[in-house]
Amino acid sequence: MSREKAPTAATGVTRTLARYLVNAQPGDLPAPVREHAVRTFLNWLGCAVGSCHHEAVEIAINAMTPFSGPAQASILGRGERFDIFNAALINGISSHVFDYDDTHLKTVIHPAGPVASAILALAEYRPVTGAEFVHALALGVETECRIGNAVYPDHYDVGWHITGTAGVFGAAAAAGKLLGLNEEQMIWALGLAASQPVGLREQFGTMTKSFHPGRAAHSGLTAAYLASLGYTSSEQSIEAKRGWANVTSTHQDYREITDDLGVRHESLLNSYKPFACGIVIHPAIDGCIQLRNEHKLTADQIAAIHLAVHPLVLELTGKRTPKVGLEGKFSVFHSAAVAIIDGRAGENQYSDAAVLDPVTVALRDKVDAVIDPAMAADAVRITVTLKDGTKLEKFVEHAIGSKDRPMNNDDLSAKFVDLVEPILGAAQATTLLQACWAMQDAPNLSRIAELSRPAD
Amino acid sequence: MSREKAPTAATGVTRTLARYLVNAQPGDLPAPVREHAVRTFLNWLGCAVGSCHHEAVEIAINAMTPFSGPAQASILGRGERFDIFNAALINGISSHVFDYDDTHLKTVIHPAGPVASAILALAEYRPVTGAEFVHALALGVETECRIGNAVYPDHYDVGWHITGTAGVFGAAAAAGKLLGLNEEQMIWALGLAASQPVGLREQFGTMTKSFHPGRAAHSGLTAAYLASLGYTSSEQSIEAKRGWANVTSTHQDYREITDDLGVRHESLLNSYKPFACGIVIHPAIDGCIQLRNEHKLTADQIAAIHLAVHPLVLELTGKRTPKVGLEGKFSVFHSAAVAIIDGRAGENQYSDAAVLDPVTVALRDKVDAVIDPAMAADAVRITVTLKDGTKLEKFVEHAIGSKDRPMNNDDLSAKFVDLVEPILGAAQATTLLQACWAMQDAPNLSRIAELSRPAD
Repeated sequence: MSREKAPTAATGVTRTLARYLVNAQPGDLPAPVREHAVRTFLNWLGCAVGSCHHEAVEIAINAMTPFSGPAQASILGRGERFDIFNAALINGISSHVFDYDDTHLKTVIHPAGPVASAILALAEYRPVTGAEFVHALALGVETECRIGNAVYPDHYDVGWHITGTAGVFGAAAAAGKLLGLNEEQMIWALGLAASQPVGLREQFGTMTKSFHPGRAAHSGLTAAYLASLGYTSSEQSIEAKRGWANVTSTHQDYREITDDLGVRHESLLNSYKPFACGIVIHPAIDGCIQLRNEHKLTADQIAAIHLAVHPLVLELTGKRTPKVGLEGKFSVFHSAAVAIIDGRAGENQYSDAAVLDPVTVALRDKVDAVIDPAMAADAVRITVTLKDGTKLEKFVEHAIGSKDRPMNNDDLSAKFVDLVEPILGAAQATTLLQACWAMQDAPNLSRIAELSRPAD
Repeated sequence: MSREKAPTAATGVTRTLARYLVNAQPGDLPAPVREHAVRTFLNWLGCAVGSCHHEAVEIAINAMTPFSGPAQASILGRGERFDIFNAALINGISSHVFDYDDTHLKTVIHPAGPVASAILALAEYRPVTGAEFVHALALGVETECRIGNAVYPDHYDVGWHITGTAGVFGAAAAAGKLLGLNEEQMIWALGLAASQPVGLREQFGTMTKSFHPGRAAHSGLTAAYLASLGYTSSEQSIEAKRGWANVTSTHQDYREITDDLGVRHESLLNSYKPFACGIVIHPAIDGCIQLRNEHKLTADQIAAIHLAVHPLVLELTGKRTPKVGLEGKFSVFHSAAVAIIDGRAGENQYSDAAVLDPVTVALRDKVDAVIDPAMAADAVRITVTLKDGTKLEKFVEHAIGSKDRPMNNDDLSAKFVDLVEPILGAAQATTLLQACWAMQDAPNLSRIAELSRPAD
């Protein structure tokens, strides 16, 4: 072993988690947790429908079409129906491809992609009520966030895309819950999940980043199905000496997984993005939009934009000269520029044309960003210097969309409609939105999947 | 970062490998390399057919049956035909479930499972000649073994099941070759593979171990198909700061991947198992069989068996009291006992009944094993003490099946027939065996898959 630290010894972690998942009843969850799961689902669905014609999604559909099984589950926003595994894969890709989905800020996990993609497909194949579905979704999100907490930050620092690596546990747990696994089977499902971590951060800025939640959904669903029929794994896949946590991280805190199950709810910390890009640059965008609106700024007035940012900003989004739209989402410089010019940062601001626009490029080149180790992840300090020498300052303490300044239900509805209306039309978008808000009372959740396909 | 060592910097590793794979022509490979690929295939096919009714295989087939796509590819030894992805998954499981497949001893990779499972399924869907197939198989094996070399032993020590983690690259490379990927597409295929490492050593002794090569085949094939249609990844997924090698290992030697491509052939180092268990205990079995035969030993004569073994033996196969057959394969104690009692260590010696047999258990309890740090991986020193005080000694320098004492083609044919005849009958086993030995000249490789299913 050439690691710095001996593996952490622990016992019973996988079993404790499995036992909680198996015994949990929908009525056990406090109403705010269930309501937050509905928000999580709504935000995920809007993202998946909105990006359903993205090139990455088209390629994945074309690649899998000759091989898909029976038409069991919907490709969201589209007419195709695939077997549940391939549907989970494709919907997981589309839900993440705009980088517009949810975020558990403590771990930077995007929780819904792996979990909701797996269980919505499953819900089209095996009828479940809305209450059962929301419960399974909340448990899946709880599982992946707790497991992420246990290994964060080392696991993420070394280069794992934690959405895919922890996400596969969430998908396995949620699918396993809907399949009615017993404790032993749930342990095996988590074990099969542990053997399938998906995702390297090196893929950021490429289509493979979006593949990660899709594949995590596919892998977690595979784990749950195999386990349901008796496919065995280790009983301590998470915590063993050569289990998942020791293999993929030098830091382990298993209490994050096992303490206060059913009492502490990580899923309540899930947040939603107002901007279609990496969350670490949301404070800069928020601040630039505020400055623009307060001072009616235009690009031609500006000599320089200086950003003092959290350390992760340059590590994750330091692309100086993005060449395609997707790279723009990983450029704090491009994002600050479009925030000043357009006053927003939606999908239009991250098109291939947008990142090459001469006005944007000129302003982007006037942006510099410096790390301030004391800056919080949801904060930024911005100094705009005008050509006339005027200096404008803005300190954003909590960016819009962060835990302390969350998007409310109206914000989420507006974001949903913005994403879904161009795909399904205004009437169906509204119907689907209402169905989502009422999903806890749905007698059969598959109705939502049906409403997510274009009417014939 | 809390790792001991800064990530190794390197450039062009993924591209260099991809360029080699894309430009390689079947005629470039020396005849011995091609012939060795045939042996690799034959050994893999026998294992997959022989174990096609194992419980793990039955479960996986039952789990996937409702979801499989068109009947494109054979489940070896059986009547079912699945889509190529699910066939790759199932055949990868069955090829490994007896722990009887091939081994690249430098890395303990079992190379054929991920690669052959992916491309035989593909060959049933897209016609390829035997020559093309053998070439792709050799390239896939070369790819996974070189990538394994680059990160061994740290990668394995920390707990990755390297057959699944390196294997996915082999499957992607071989499938990508048969799909005719260009250099850029091959880079993406390797990148998608890098994001899908499969397998923890913690799963050894459970069904999930066999899942690893199956899932690696599935994932590598997925990577190749997505890349063939333009699904992008990083261009330095293997060597980047947060690429596969740095994320999954603290040791990297990229020359193992890029040096002497087409000249040095790791695939020639692939070896085949005469015994149906973990390869590290083959020297002990070999030596015990030799002592048994030389001295006509019976269990009731023996007071004690002492083994001086390579360090990995107790780490990998130290199960003192196996309770099911599969655990017996990870018990050097059980294996030494059956070698003395039965003079062999085939599947019969690793049944659930065999590990509970009172005579075997009694002799097993008389076996002890001590690590000798100077002992080579293919060697052992055995001391058998008889009840009359006699001490018998045996030093095995190179176990049967090792690189220096390989199984010859007749040995491989005999092993193949032993495995296949109970499934397909003697006549078809012989026909299939002959087809395998002649596979380089096959106009369409799918004929071999057809011969691997029972005649109606």
